[in-house]
Amino acid sequence: MSAECAELSARLFADASADGVPSHGLNRFPLFVSCIERGLVDVSATPECVASFGGLERWDGRRGPGNLNAHRCMDRAIELARTHGVGAVALAHTNHWMRGGAYGWQAADAGVVGICWTNTLPNLPPWGATSPRIGNNPLVIGVPRAGGHVVLDMAMSQFSYGALSVHRMRGQELPVDGGYDEQGRLTRSPAAIERTQRLLPIGYWKGSGLSVVLDMIATLLSGGQATHEITPVVADETGQSQVFVAFDPSTLGAMDEVNSSVDRIVEDLHQTGADVRYPGERTLATRQRSMSEGVEVEPSIWEAVRALLGRV
Amino acid sequence: MSAECAELSARLFADASADGVPSHGLNRFPLFVSCIERGLVDVSATPECVASFGGLERWDGRRGPGNLNAHRCMDRAIELARTHGVGAVALAHTNHWMRGGAYGWQAADAGVVGICWTNTLPNLPPWGATSPRIGNNPLVIGVPRAGGHVVLDMAMSQFSYGALSVHRMRGQELPVDGGYDEQGRLTRSPAAIERTQRLLPIGYWKGSGLSVVLDMIATLLSGGQATHEITPVVADETGQSQVFVAFDPSTLGAMDEVNSSVDRIVEDLHQTGADVRYPGERTLATRQRSMSEGVEVEPSIWEAVRALLGRV
Repeated sequence: MSAECAELSARLFADASADGVPSHGLNRFPLFVSCIERGLVDVSATPECVASFGGLERWDGRRGPGNLNAHRCMDRAIELARTHGVGAVALAHTNHWMRGGAYGWQAADAGVVGICWTNTLPNLPPWGATSPRIGNNPLVIGVPRAGGHVVLDMAMSQFSYGALSVHRMRGQELPVDGGYDEQGRLTRSPAAIERTQRLLPIGYWKGSGLSVVLDMIATLLSGGQATHEITPVVADETGQSQVFVAFDPSTLGAMDEVNSSVDRIVEDLHQTGADVRYPGERTLATRQRSMSEGVEVEPSIWEAVRALLGRV
Repeated sequence: MSAECAELSARLFADASADGVPSHGLNRFPLFVSCIERGLVDVSATPECVASFGGLERWDGRRGPGNLNAHRCMDRAIELARTHGVGAVALAHTNHWMRGGAYGWQAADAGVVGICWTNTLPNLPPWGATSPRIGNNPLVIGVPRAGGHVVLDMAMSQFSYGALSVHRMRGQELPVDGGYDEQGRLTRSPAAIERTQRLLPIGYWKGSGLSVVLDMIATLLSGGQATHEITPVVADETGQSQVFVAFDPSTLGAMDEVNSSVDRIVEDLHQTGADVRYPGERTLATRQRSMSEGVEVEPSIWEAVRALLGRV
């Protein structure tokens, strides 16, 4: 792995923790190293463009590090948007992109609207079934804004497995029903849902349908694996398919107008109540606190990461 | 209105009823005529391109018929995808597009992946607030498939106002909580939710966030009105902003592979249970029944539509 790639990958892990998403930041770093050691992630692989037409490209991730592949492909979608107004890159044969929100922030930092999603291993029952067969397929949307970007980063399950484990470890119930228990009843118990793997999709049948079509688009545009094809060969999650889309509003002119329209939406939202936030607002506050007071890290995770120093 | 435009508009209304979505088909036709009579919809207006860069265009709907404007802009997004791989059209100053799913079917019929959404008047409370301030902003995604297209057509509220009224008229409770009653308790009573206008967004905070970013993108790319700007001037819903995106997978080659990947996802989904369907599957069955047995129309709606014949 080149020093440049290592630095970018490390920054993406560290930024996730600094932004308050340790589950896909430092907490996941030991698993990332384990995937490298077991040959699932090829640290020397770099993604390459395998088909191209105008603003649309298909890339092969060659099983390289998922966060580097995703960062490269969003970067390319942004470049394509600069020259075509809109650009899209579909990426096959990649690995877990860690924190999806990173690529929404990346697009917004470049002044473009970014939309990206990934498929996953089967970890969510489709509506009407009881076993995990579709993915929770995170969807990320970034909108640039001078006063703080708006970045939505949401999975298709009401709670991610990371959120379930955080609630369980704290002894907390979920704020709303998150899935089914062993008796098939809706429950707020994170441990019961972890046991059944019967997570609820957002909006019940709606999130289930959205998960399916996101998987279809990622698979057909990238030529990669669908969710149902991800685990049969290896138990670990590897070989995901992803899509990165960027729109460059500056190509249509009138950026002042663009900026003010987003600001007016934020202002209106803030007037509705003290607890109403735009997506990404809390992230920015957490980042600012991390930068001034230091990044919170679980002591056990810090020890695990330090222990890796002797191995690599 | 030209004969050609009238025929297309009529077909879009009739198709919605034939596909089992009468709420945005014939049932809405009397309101459409009323909007024309009150000058909110200008039947003689045709949309025009006001800014263009590569595969991205901004159109002005000039307050013309919403279904014709949307059909024209999806058509243009498809043309752009044919020449740029990916194409996107942002449409400002339009009117209600009636059944959003129509434009997903349109893209899929053309063999491309289509994604489109609209903003709406404020009709949904953002998460953390109690009054309607964001839109239920329907999102439509169409994926072409020889054996029957996959088309998702979903609003950001768990139930649309149309679904609430259908349940109320049938004396049915909602299958899951759909919003809050006057005491601020979650309820399955459609009438109580209609009174409070406190509908639940899909996935609670998640659907609320998705609604906000869809509004932002539609507004900033089109240069049109945001949800919070739609009703202050006129009580009716007029002047929406919309986005139409198309990806042409054939530009990347290997269409056989594309088709088979989507088929494999459908097959896997069908294996999970007898009640598991892909988005659009039920629509296709309804369409086939309508074509063989006739389209179901509420007698009162049929009378109302016939009564309009004397007025136009």
